[in-house]
Amino acid sequence: MGRRSGGREARLAARSAELPVKPVRPGQTGGQYRPLSDAQLQDIFENALDLLEELGMGSPIPAFIESTVEAGGWMDDDDRLHYPTDLVKRAIDSATKEFVWHGLDEDRSIELKDQNVHFSTAGAAVLMLDHGTRTFRESQSADLYDSARLADTLEHIHAYVRTVVARDADNARDLDMVTAYATMMGTTKPQGTSFFQPEHVYEVVSMYDMLLGEEGAFRKRPFVVANATFVVPPLRFAQDTAECMVAQVRTGMPINLLSAGQAGATSPASLSGSLVQAMAECLAALTNINLLSPGHPCIFSMWPFVSDLRTGAMSGGSGEEALLNAGSGQLANWLGLPSGSAAGMADSKLPDGQAGHEKGLTVSLVAQAGTNVIYESAGMLAALLGHSLEMMVIDNDLLGAVNRTIRGIETDDYSMARTVFDDVVHGEGHFLGHPQTLDLMEKHYVYPIIGDRLSPDDWKDEGATDASDRAHDYVVRTLASHYPSHVSPEKDAEIRDAFNIILPVDVVSGADGRWRREAT
Amino acid sequence: MGRRSGGREARLAARSAELPVKPVRPGQTGGQYRPLSDAQLQDIFENALDLLEELGMGSPIPAFIESTVEAGGWMDDDDRLHYPTDLVKRAIDSATKEFVWHGLDEDRSIELKDQNVHFSTAGAAVLMLDHGTRTFRESQSADLYDSARLADTLEHIHAYVRTVVARDADNARDLDMVTAYATMMGTTKPQGTSFFQPEHVYEVVSMYDMLLGEEGAFRKRPFVVANATFVVPPLRFAQDTAECMVAQVRTGMPINLLSAGQAGATSPASLSGSLVQAMAECLAALTNINLLSPGHPCIFSMWPFVSDLRTGAMSGGSGEEALLNAGSGQLANWLGLPSGSAAGMADSKLPDGQAGHEKGLTVSLVAQAGTNVIYESAGMLAALLGHSLEMMVIDNDLLGAVNRTIRGIETDDYSMARTVFDDVVHGEGHFLGHPQTLDLMEKHYVYPIIGDRLSPDDWKDEGATDASDRAHDYVVRTLASHYPSHVSPEKDAEIRDAFNIILPVDVVSGADGRWRREAT
Repeated sequence: MGRRSGGREARLAARSAELPVKPVRPGQTGGQYRPLSDAQLQDIFENALDLLEELGMGSPIPAFIESTVEAGGWMDDDDRLHYPTDLVKRAIDSATKEFVWHGLDEDRSIELKDQNVHFSTAGAAVLMLDHGTRTFRESQSADLYDSARLADTLEHIHAYVRTVVARDADNARDLDMVTAYATMMGTTKPQGTSFFQPEHVYEVVSMYDMLLGEEGAFRKRPFVVANATFVVPPLRFAQDTAECMVAQVRTGMPINLLSAGQAGATSPASLSGSLVQAMAECLAALTNINLLSPGHPCIFSMWPFVSDLRTGAMSGGSGEEALLNAGSGQLANWLGLPSGSAAGMADSKLPDGQAGHEKGLTVSLVAQAGTNVIYESAGMLAALLGHSLEMMVIDNDLLGAVNRTIRGIETDDYSMARTVFDDVVHGEGHFLGHPQTLDLMEKHYVYPIIGDRLSPDDWKDEGATDASDRAHDYVVRTLASHYPSHVSPEKDAEIRDAFNIILPVDVVSGADGRWRREAT
Repeated sequence: MGRRSGGREARLAARSAELPVKPVRPGQTGGQYRPLSDAQLQDIFENALDLLEELGMGSPIPAFIESTVEAGGWMDDDDRLHYPTDLVKRAIDSATKEFVWHGLDEDRSIELKDQNVHFSTAGAAVLMLDHGTRTFRESQSADLYDSARLADTLEHIHAYVRTVVARDADNARDLDMVTAYATMMGTTKPQGTSFFQPEHVYEVVSMYDMLLGEEGAFRKRPFVVANATFVVPPLRFAQDTAECMVAQVRTGMPINLLSAGQAGATSPASLSGSLVQAMAECLAALTNINLLSPGHPCIFSMWPFVSDLRTGAMSGGSGEEALLNAGSGQLANWLGLPSGSAAGMADSKLPDGQAGHEKGLTVSLVAQAGTNVIYESAGMLAALLGHSLEMMVIDNDLLGAVNRTIRGIETDDYSMARTVFDDVVHGEGHFLGHPQTLDLMEKHYVYPIIGDRLSPDDWKDEGATDASDRAHDYVVRTLASHYPSHVSPEKDAEIRDAFNIILPVDVVSGADGRWRREAT
């Protein structure tokens, strides 16, 4: 070992000692895309307030009626609950403007505020796409676990909300329990689940407390946001979900307030009409939650969906859908509330060129609008009816690229490169070996994990694969090896003793060997 | 024929008498996405002016040197031509701010001004992707003709600039002639071509005059914009192309001023540095053109490309690429000039999920930035090395959806739907059959031509196709039948007598039967 290597070694050591400089991070600031003008934002808000005062919400639950009437609202002869404008405005004032969505791993926590952008999964798909066969099968609790632990490895998915319905559950209680359990076991990222009945909320929170080691622990550091689709649109509460929200308020579980009307079917065919309705519905829920518990953390998620008006079926990947969700995110941000939107819902049944551009369009615009959480942004197909693990891996590349666009263009002196031009024009004539180029390679550029950038010849030599082939390879390798270890086998056994969990322990530990068989 | 049908027939007649109300049109107003702040725009502009004054442009041609020096510029000892800031600013003032890009069919003309957005093809791919085999072959003049007439049928492609290099041409003259010829025969849309030598510009314009029926006719209604990649970046003229631009000025042919540096290789790795360079290069060309002929119609097309810094190879589908081209469009618009950007360049070799999201991301953001012409937006793969007819059909669906997002969200009283809410909440409880829904179905919603929105079961019953399968079906049906007839066989024979055209007449007429054989 001669002296000459000393300089290089010292440099390498110094370099590896540096913290890795990631080109993108969760929570960068969006808002550079503004589909609605200030006057339009105000107009939509005023129309929403008008609907709440004049038409109100149908099917209110007693807890909502009582507190709303006490605060100045009223019931009409059609049993609709009306919200005076002042009451709604006071609720907005008292609502939480930002909160931390904790990860089970605290380093993965995300902060919902301002126009910070994060990407999350979500969905209640009932079908899983099998790779390579172009066939769907019923989704199972094991699929949910696999989907969660796959997402656990994907850098640009910042939160994991359950993607599929565990159709191996016989009843709502088993389903709510295993959905929360499979998600919690699969990832240490901030996560979300959903509930059919309020009593399951209490039971699930007991499970979370057991995981965290003491009663009340979940309330202190909630790592789960409940996805609450509280409306049967137009303008009518879903009573079971509304009761679940009361339970979530009592257990300290943050709530994602979802309205999810479908333009042309359960909301107006006009885009602005759909936004007015979704805003009114979410404001009603926000008002009721804040009357029960001022400042209870909520995400304002209008999720305006679209119908294909030729058939009435839901369509998730259109330009209309991109506009609606970008507008909804802008509206929620304009109110100053933590905001959620839906994007990345492809109508295509396969991870093909159609699915890709439907996702590219919708995720790009909704993210640039600056929504705090872009839900549904990975793995969803068939207008949310289908989930694909390969699609989720492909989508992760898209989310990384979109997040790079959120970071934007720096124009500090170093980036403007004035002296670099002098070096190059009077020197080599190109920038390839310039120190600035080497410096920025990892700091400013995002690289896809399965996206292919080879020349046509090299791509052919490597097997002429398509994106789903390469994604499938990633899925199999990852799921054969990545069994998160944040819950010990002993803790898992304790949980399984206390609660009825239908997902077999061998699936959770990998002892069933499903993925290892495919990987070899 | 009883009387009862009278009412229905009258209604049908009245309906068919109405003009079709398209949900989107060419030239809608963009600009809702602003990646650069006003201060950043100003900074980049000032840095570009500084480069032109202090470093200047290498390899200037005599016509540029003469007029620039006469106007206050100077040559340095390295034979670089320097442009004083005042001179560049005067050139911007004298430059054309808007012009009409005519179609051979005048109804297809487009107006480049303000933040009007249009979609165009472009490219110089050397490979064609064969459907279904995952193999590339060398592109031919017949491919260019097929590509043009396919684009001729696709609603959301507003201009056609040649996509592939006719590799069956033996020399530059045959290539320039057949490129212009195949494009002109394939479509009546506004079109573009490119030139290797200035003498070919004069010859091609003679061909255009012959097509239009008299000498000087092209100058009166130019339907072709020359794609002029006039730079060998950084900051050096491509002399042959510069000489071609002089010929284009003399023949009245509008010019698309393309700089096309590649960040990290021929322009700085920093995004803002790349924008500074591209802006300086395009301003140099703009200055020279306007010194030769003030107000000669030009498109300011910075086209900043990106390298994958791991390999140095060009990458077209990244977030960095989306940002750069959105920023470049914003800069050109900020100068008040007709603007062009590049988007839709996929790195993928196939029309797969990767290609889709690369295109969705880049086209959405660049279009929202409000560039007058979004080039490269259909059919391109392999970072511009490959062209695919199926990809072009899939991309047309994307462009329609993106154009829907450019149209934006209307908030007039009718759209806000206040009375519709009264009808529905106190009536049917849904919007499916409401007159407003039926009214807006065709006026507000864009439908894909090959995009699939069936349920998983119906999709399976229809053959479980992917987007490229359905696109291929469209390609074969269209190319077997759509032989544009705007040039009569007699006129074609006259042109072929006067000029050396290597594309066989049987290919142009369809007598070769290639596509009919595949269609049957």
